[in-house]
Amino acid sequence: MDSNIKFSSGLHVFGNTLDRFVGGGYKEDKSLEELFESASKVKELSGVELIGGWHINEENVDRIKELKNKYNLEIVFIGPDLWTQKRWKNGSFASNDKKIRREAIEVLKKTMDIAAEVNCNLLDVWFAHDGYDYSFQADFIKAWELIIDGLKECADYRKDVNLGIEYKIKEPRTHLFIGTIGKTLLLLEKVNCDNVGVILDVGHSLYGYENMAESAALCKFFGDKLYHLHLNDNYRYWDDDMMVASVHIPEYLELIYWLKRISYKGWYSLDIFPYREDGIGAANECIALLKSLINTVNSFDNKEIEKIINEADGVKSYALIRKILFK
Amino acid sequence: MDSNIKFSSGLHVFGNTLDRFVGGGYKEDKSLEELFESASKVKELSGVELIGGWHINEENVDRIKELKNKYNLEIVFIGPDLWTQKRWKNGSFASNDKKIRREAIEVLKKTMDIAAEVNCNLLDVWFAHDGYDYSFQADFIKAWELIIDGLKECADYRKDVNLGIEYKIKEPRTHLFIGTIGKTLLLLEKVNCDNVGVILDVGHSLYGYENMAESAALCKFFGDKLYHLHLNDNYRYWDDDMMVASVHIPEYLELIYWLKRISYKGWYSLDIFPYREDGIGAANECIALLKSLINTVNSFDNKEIEKIINEADGVKSYALIRKILFK
Amino acid sequence: MDSNIKFSSGLHVFGNTLDRFVGGGYKEDKSLEELFESASKVKELSGVELIGGWHINEENVDRIKELKNKYNLEIVFIGPDLWTQKRWKNGSFASNDKKIRREAIEVLKKTMDIAAEVNCNLLDVWFAHDGYDYSFQADFIKAWELIIDGLKECADYRKDVNLGIEYKIKEPRTHLFIGTIGKTLLLLEKVNCDNVGVILDVGHSLYGYENMAESAALCKFFGDKLYHLHLNDNYRYWDDDMMVASVHIPEYLELIYWLKRISYKGWYSLDIFPYREDGIGAANECIALLKSLINTVNSFDNKEIEKIINEADGVKSYALIRKILFK
Amino acid sequence: MDSNIKFSSGLHVFGNTLDRFVGGGYKEDKSLEELFESASKVKELSGVELIGGWHINEENVDRIKELKNKYNLEIVFIGPDLWTQKRWKNGSFASNDKKIRREAIEVLKKTMDIAAEVNCNLLDVWFAHDGYDYSFQADFIKAWELIIDGLKECADYRKDVNLGIEYKIKEPRTHLFIGTIGKTLLLLEKVNCDNVGVILDVGHSLYGYENMAESAALCKFFGDKLYHLHLNDNYRYWDDDMMVASVHIPEYLELIYWLKRISYKGWYSLDIFPYREDGIGAANECIALLKSLINTVNSFDNKEIEKIINEADGVKSYALIRKILFK
Repeated sequence: MDSNIKFSSGLHVFGNTLDRFVGGGYKEDKSLEELFESASKVKELSGVELIGGWHINEENVDRIKELKNKYNLEIVFIGPDLWTQKRWKNGSFASNDKKIRREAIEVLKKTMDIAAEVNCNLLDVWFAHDGYDYSFQADFIKAWELIIDGLKECADYRKDVNLGIEYKIKEPRTHLFIGTIGKTLLLLEKVNCDNVGVILDVGHSLYGYENMAESAALCKFFGDKLYHLHLNDNYRYWDDDMMVASVHIPEYLELIYWLKRISYKGWYSLDIFPYREDGIGAANECIALLKSLINTVNSFDNKEIEKIINEADGVKSYALIRKILFK
Repeated sequence: MDSNIKFSSGLHVFGNTLDRFVGGGYKEDKSLEELFESASKVKELSGVELIGGWHINEENVDRIKELKNKYNLEIVFIGPDLWTQKRWKNGSFASNDKKIRREAIEVLKKTMDIAAEVNCNLLDVWFAHDGYDYSFQADFIKAWELIIDGLKECADYRKDVNLGIEYKIKEPRTHLFIGTIGKTLLLLEKVNCDNVGVILDVGHSLYGYENMAESAALCKFFGDKLYHLHLNDNYRYWDDDMMVASVHIPEYLELIYWLKRISYKGWYSLDIFPYREDGIGAANECIALLKSLINTVNSFDNKEIEKIINEADGVKSYALIRKILFK
Repeated sequence: MDSNIKFSSGLHVFGNTLDRFVGGGYKEDKSLEELFESASKVKELSGVELIGGWHINEENVDRIKELKNKYNLEIVFIGPDLWTQKRWKNGSFASNDKKIRREAIEVLKKTMDIAAEVNCNLLDVWFAHDGYDYSFQADFIKAWELIIDGLKECADYRKDVNLGIEYKIKEPRTHLFIGTIGKTLLLLEKVNCDNVGVILDVGHSLYGYENMAESAALCKFFGDKLYHLHLNDNYRYWDDDMMVASVHIPEYLELIYWLKRISYKGWYSLDIFPYREDGIGAANECIALLKSLINTVNSFDNKEIEKIINEADGVKSYALIRKILFK
Repeated sequence: MDSNIKFSSGLHVFGNTLDRFVGGGYKEDKSLEELFESASKVKELSGVELIGGWHINEENVDRIKELKNKYNLEIVFIGPDLWTQKRWKNGSFASNDKKIRREAIEVLKKTMDIAAEVNCNLLDVWFAHDGYDYSFQADFIKAWELIIDGLKECADYRKDVNLGIEYKIKEPRTHLFIGTIGKTLLLLEKVNCDNVGVILDVGHSLYGYENMAESAALCKFFGDKLYHLHLNDNYRYWDDDMMVASVHIPEYLELIYWLKRISYKGWYSLDIFPYREDGIGAANECIALLKSLINTVNSFDNKEIEKIINEADGVKSYALIRKILFK
């Protein structure tokens, strides 16, 4: 395997998991230290993602530094808290409430400062509640204006921290404004800042009927904008956040090939939601399968893959999958 | 409107709502009395559904009686707690853990007793966690055997309380065993008890790519088994639990027509999840639209509808929708 | 109703319809004149769309002029034949075969000339076969380069004919490169020609999990690029090309409102596929329902709609639907 | 590999392929003999399926016998022509037109006779047009009555030919009456004839959000009713009829395991639609991948698989996929 590949995980993978039916969660709550300790037990995991509001805030930055050093884990990104509290329920950057919108922008800037403090240069910007559920519930044009303006302001605030836009087509709203790879790259064209790019959650891509390899390649084409990668899987209708490649193996093989081809240098990060599963076990197994898939693709002649792609013949493309897996 | 139509609602419609991202909820928690009081404020609402574990348990039966009388609300059904706690995470009736399975059966029987005490003759049996998420995670045959046997045992326990099976294709598992109208009616054939029928959640039907009117009609055909109706709407990919007919008006018109045609006598019950909305306002508006739709269908010559159906001509069927709405 | 609204239809709506199972078609073939004659029988229809390869070619331009005059129908657009023949099966503008690609570009230019001859200033550019079916079957980056370059060349060829890009997420390939509103507007940013815009097929939008009103509004926001509108409906999983608003009435109301708000001046054009239905009857009924919906929206205070949209309150948005339909 | 496994294919796999856009087809037409000859060139293929109306009819039975002998191919099933002609457009067994319905029943009986003549004991009964597209276009109850009665009549006609019901949720109608595994098994309960069972098209299962292994297992549970298997793959939204396991490898592994576990003795039959691909090449590659998958599952300790299934632990189930593929 390419020895440069680095694995990371959302810290939430090791915590309690809940849904709307089991509000108390399927597992037990864990302390912040227990979460770091759990992450440290995963073989080959060297980084973690933190969510503002769940794991990190202005008050516990020193504690985070301690834990990250104690457990020898990099902070891969921080997700500013634009979505864990009820105050964001009608939106953050695109909120019609000017006060809320201003708070959201300030939260993001503050999170940029915090990130720099913990030696992290990436935020995960997910506009989770910026969207709508019903017909006649949104002014689409105003929403885009507000998001573009807000992002520009934040990107200008400090240039040493990158903003990665994580698009998602639905959940927790039935419609999110920034929902597809196309819309996200379009947003980037308009924002036009060097430190704004894409965080590709391959599950979001899949259940938006995208091909994840294609979405990654388009990030390359439109300005080398793939900052970070969220890995998981689903059955294409919902963000099931299942373990990596548990459903879609051929598409994962294609993704792995393209990540290499576009010289992706970032993390291979787990963003799964192991509702009923042991988080450490799930993460270990995800990395184990990922490594098998990566090794398999790497050990296959990549020039041969390129040649087959250029022939655009379904039979040959399909045969390639078999050859990669069962050579 | 048919003056016999009775509207009810899940009590949860008036409470706090949460999802996996906003664990604290989008609103404030309410006391049990506040929930009943809220329900009582909805115009024309005369019944409520209670969920075991959320609203009712062995300890508070007297309190429930008090509240139902004080607020003049019938208890329409009780959902036995087979799904609100982490202990059910790997299943209830189909659990591989014999102890858990026995507990589930006993919870259901106990809930039958409680129902009788509060003058309610229907349980909502939803096998929420009886399913699986991954390949190689379930013994499908054993699961059906366990569910059939368990249901028979419960149905025999007391004949004065009906068991309504609420099927759902996914969530909270990616696959639920009892997921479609076909499987549910097949289950009923095997269980073969007079007091076991169907609770049709029209949203579950819709996002399982069923036509809700057809599913209702099949309940009639296979033994007049439609016990109760859950009304809501969604965008066909997920159980969005949106307000009634907010998306699918023609299909709602067809449903309303068929409910009349099959002589459905049960409740028209709201099972929406107003994550960000005022529950009372949402319920009031659902009933207002429902009444408009019911009146519209009823005021149209139903013989004419039957005639058009029998012609099976798309243009005529489509024209009918316009004529019903804009006559 | 706004007296400026003009209705048109694809000419294919009146012809035979086939699918992969019934290759001979569900109806009888019609001559070109019969197609025009059929169109002329639809009340309030004043324009037709022609498909190169099906209806128009270099040889029959004079005949088309005759028929359009005889039946008093405008030619609303011409779809260049990039997709009706087997030679395009592996793509047109993005074909790996240079000869095929060159042919495609020349077909498009030639169709621009033909359009000008029949007094039509719009082409419908649908890259139907430019996509892929299997993993490892496409070089996504090269495809975009080829499409951008080809479009620029064609747009420069003559400025008096507009090129409307009709995006579609799948069919006849499982994945089309230009599949979503986001990708289409991104393409326009790159092509950056005054005479290249969007043809919004609302069904394509719907079954790509877009909201059609939002897609229309985004065309406005990104340069007032909505050239033309294809109206139909579907059940969100496939391009069923059903009669207009036969499934999604609230979303159609919202679309109609937004078309007015963004000052859309183009045609309201039917692109349905009445497999088993009489084409004239289907078109008449589509226009009848459309007119009812348009009148209903127009007669409602549009300032009130704007106000409700700005409140972003689901209950109010939902109540608005009822008020518009049942005031 | 289990040496008893026999591979077959639909004869149409080797012919021309068309869709609604490319009516002339993506390939060239082939004579009946060329189709048989093509099938005979596929390695390890020993049977073919014939479609009435496309390949076989009352007139060419002797010719079919000749070809089957000449090319040493068994006739695996015959699909009675209930769907290739326009006369069936509004249904066959469930048609409201008594004459059409009678014709359909007679076609089916005649096809049973033909089958017996060519030493084939299975019909593929697909009610392709028995369904509807619009709201208010079907009398669901009457449709079921007609289908049940018709099937009973045919099943009684001669007991030496089996009728395999192939369910499908949509296409060519937007809704087919016999659409899911649940409805199909329910139909079988009502028909209650020894010679009526299920033909499981795994693609139909997949895009109806079923798990194909579960659907196969339920056929076992409800009377050992799995007669035949159609193999292909898709992206879950449409019947893409792609090459086998080109998308869903873990679910195919689970299917293969369960086919063994339920002692399935029938054919492994290809039902793909290689629109743009060489049919012989596609079939060869499908069998090659199938064999790899079957060997992989068979060489893994099946007791170990059973044990893991019984633990119902997602991490273990997921790890099993890796172990099977990459041991």
